[in-house]
Amino acid sequence: MDLLELLPLDELSHGLANLSMFPYFDMAHYIVSIMALREQPGVLEVSRVSPLACWFSSMLFCFGGAVLSAIMLAEPVVAPLSNSTGVLLASITWYLVFYCPMDLVYCCSALLPLRLVLSVMKEVTRTWKVLGGVTLAHSKYKDSLLVMIAIGWAKGAGGGLIRNFEQLVRGVWKPETNELLKMSYPTKITLIGAVLFALQQTRYLPLQTHHLMLIYTVFTVVNKSRMMLTGSSSSPFAAIESAVYKTLFAGHSPYDALTGEVQKACVDQRTTATAGAKEIGENGAAGKTTPVSRVKGQSGSLKAKDKSENADTTNCKKIN
Amino acid sequence: MDLLELLPLDELSHGLANLSMFPYFDMAHYIVSIMALREQPGVLEVSRVSPLACWFSSMLFCFGGAVLSAIMLAEPVVAPLSNSTGVLLASITWYLVFYCPMDLVYCCSALLPLRLVLSVMKEVTRTWKVLGGVTLAHSKYKDSLLVMIAIGWAKGAGGGLIRNFEQLVRGVWKPETNELLKMSYPTKITLIGAVLFALQQTRYLPLQTHHLMLIYTVFTVVNKSRMMLTGSSSSPFAAIESAVYKTLFAGHSPYDALTGEVQKACVDQRTTATAGAKEIGENGAAGKTTPVSRVKGQSGSLKAKDKSENADTTNCKKIN
Amino acid sequence: MDLLELLPLDELSHGLANLSMFPYFDMAHYIVSIMALREQPGVLEVSRVSPLACWFSSMLFCFGGAVLSAIMLAEPVVAPLSNSTGVLLASITWYLVFYCPMDLVYCCSALLPLRLVLSVMKEVTRTWKVLGGVTLAHSKYKDSLLVMIAIGWAKGAGGGLIRNFEQLVRGVWKPETNELLKMSYPTKITLIGAVLFALQQTRYLPLQTHHLMLIYTVFTVVNKSRMMLTGSSSSPFAAIESAVYKTLFAGHSPYDALTGEVQKACVDQRTTATAGAKEIGENGAAGKTTPVSRVKGQSGSLKAKDKSENADTTNCKKIN
Repeated sequence: MDLLELLPLDELSHGLANLSMFPYFDMAHYIVSIMALREQPGVLEVSRVSPLACWFSSMLFCFGGAVLSAIMLAEPVVAPLSNSTGVLLASITWYLVFYCPMDLVYCCSALLPLRLVLSVMKEVTRTWKVLGGVTLAHSKYKDSLLVMIAIGWAKGAGGGLIRNFEQLVRGVWKPETNELLKMSYPTKITLIGAVLFALQQTRYLPLQTHHLMLIYTVFTVVNKSRMMLTGSSSSPFAAIESAVYKTLFAGHSPYDALTGEVQKACVDQRTTATAGAKEIGENGAAGKTTPVSRVKGQSGSLKAKDKSENADTTNCKKIN
Repeated sequence: MDLLELLPLDELSHGLANLSMFPYFDMAHYIVSIMALREQPGVLEVSRVSPLACWFSSMLFCFGGAVLSAIMLAEPVVAPLSNSTGVLLASITWYLVFYCPMDLVYCCSALLPLRLVLSVMKEVTRTWKVLGGVTLAHSKYKDSLLVMIAIGWAKGAGGGLIRNFEQLVRGVWKPETNELLKMSYPTKITLIGAVLFALQQTRYLPLQTHHLMLIYTVFTVVNKSRMMLTGSSSSPFAAIESAVYKTLFAGHSPYDALTGEVQKACVDQRTTATAGAKEIGENGAAGKTTPVSRVKGQSGSLKAKDKSENADTTNCKKIN
Repeated sequence: MDLLELLPLDELSHGLANLSMFPYFDMAHYIVSIMALREQPGVLEVSRVSPLACWFSSMLFCFGGAVLSAIMLAEPVVAPLSNSTGVLLASITWYLVFYCPMDLVYCCSALLPLRLVLSVMKEVTRTWKVLGGVTLAHSKYKDSLLVMIAIGWAKGAGGGLIRNFEQLVRGVWKPETNELLKMSYPTKITLIGAVLFALQQTRYLPLQTHHLMLIYTVFTVVNKSRMMLTGSSSSPFAAIESAVYKTLFAGHSPYDALTGEVQKACVDQRTTATAGAKEIGENGAAGKTTPVSRVKGQSGSLKAKDKSENADTTNCKKIN
């Protein structure tokens, strides 16, 4: 009947679908997530000043998807905390990554081969999370494709989507950037997964669940490996995105016609209202920054991250 | 029995109460809301850089009341998304307002006669929303007038009340202003409506529901038309507000006695702690800004909005 | 059986456990909370500019714990509003503290003996709140110690934990500080109470509820009195905290090794990316501030608070 059923891939997909995420894959997810937190600028200082804030941030990195989908479905936000084993595992990981004697755990995990394996395992958990979110939403809102996509996306990419508030826990506030304004690769791939699984669950996509799980998992794993090995951050969807964007959103551009005038208006305002602007803080200017300056700001903070990572690596080398 | 029942107005009020909001009035609400979003400073840039953030902001403008009241009543926040027809209509409106070829939809809707009709229709939906919120709260919390007012207000003016977080989606953060600190006209009129309907539902106001609906709708429609036609933004409650304020909140003013000293303290602090202030960001200064400077800041941003609107209008003229 | 049962303290503990918080202790809680709000910098201005925002902030100070625990357990956030008597009492208190003719209420309550009594009464309510939160969580999540601690903590110290968002109501935004990054004394003592009551409820701590209530209440009351009378803000746990910190979180410090490099990186970045930094606002720099500068900033704002309090006191003296 189904082409995939005739191939030996069918058995593989059944095997994958029966794979248990606990404990190894979950563990890999915690390690990679907390290492990603540690590599954010300023986190090492926070881990010394307030271990509690650092722990809370780590839990948001690990369980952000569960928290966000709980908020969206009006289920208790503390529910993830009631999963004692998960929280315990994540807390031990947090402790070892941040405070291990000699910094052994972080330095070992940061070695490319091990990090590659862990990252690939983390990618596998994504399939389970997205599918879990979609089926949960399907059981509550039978026909609503949008709700299924939203919950699947939230479960799979929650940590990224609540980034602004996770940063606030650490005393950092960057309102000028969020995952909706500028999606990162994991957020994009999760959105695509949520759309695919939602279509599959509502029978618009004629595939069996375990087959789609195999296809999606292989795609994410291959992509992640390619990106880590080549060090490229180019999205595999860049061409499609660009085509869709040009077709749908660039037909008529009042923006092009406006740009000159708006910028002029902004400049006028800046020069005339400098006193006021100083009072209301530079935040007030966020709405007026042009996309160019925004990108500049972001590349600046990326640079900072790179430096922080280099510093970490140097540190590891010294210890070794 | 009732004076209103003897008048021909009774039939009119029955007719109004049986009016269906879907699809025409809902549509008008979406158009006016999304046009209001488009006229915010910086939104056109966002609509080019990230259509997704722009769409999400539009949905918050259209369904903000439903989202806020869902949060307050611990009901699923995604519920508005499950109303597929509504979201579809709002999304089509969003697309046409922002990306229509030749910008036809926005330019036509921005013409005064059409805009007046649409705005009046949007005002009519307010009555339904406030009443919906009040009766929903009444069914859950029988005797609590405060809860009924809060939910009615949230349903009717939700978009305004969650403005800070809607702006955050677009990368804008203006902590120094919110609807509680400085209420806009729609927020005020909705609050009054919520109070009236809550009093009516708990029988403190001896009126029938459809009569109050007629009275409130006529009042909001007349007021909105007057404000749009005369271009005045003076609130019809200014006199009452001022009287209440003077009676209740200005009897004794420790503030007047304090102002000098507080300002002196602020100045001292600013000059001595400049280094620290620079580190913690200009936000830290928000607490110290005097009301005067706050107003200055706001008028600054209003000026920006005006300019953006002018720019839009110029743009439309060019096309026409 | 139990040592405490043989002592006359047993009767005392039973008497305390049967004490009703309503109305006197609740009233004391409202007065002390709203006075604490009034002594925040900038609040007097807000109370003149927008009584509504001031009232809303006061309610968050009074019912913050109930609101936060409602959010965490996915119960309606408006539920505290449905407690009409409580809200009415708190609102009357708010009005009297902020707008009483001659400022009599604030000036009287600010006198040390009365303030001491009120503060001690407020400390007593903490025991009831923490216990209420812990038992509520225990009834929903039988075995989860973490959830019980979280809800008990939220109920008892909610006002502090949601401080950032309470400030936002007043137009103040201080992302660089929160209760997780730098815990205040009330937050710490509540956390300890939540841990103790959670251990007691799950039978890990072999004590009866009313005995623990007595012990915890006496401890908080004595501590608060000592701190108010001596004017010291030294935590009674400083020694334990320091020991725990040194044992667990300072074993290996990649931070020490890093500090130089990170700071260098920060300086580099600041000098090279000044243009970008200006665009993204000083907030972007929050992540880069060293702990030292953060502390400096905070001591700056504390100084401001002191000055505001002095100003208030001066004002009271003038009136007297």
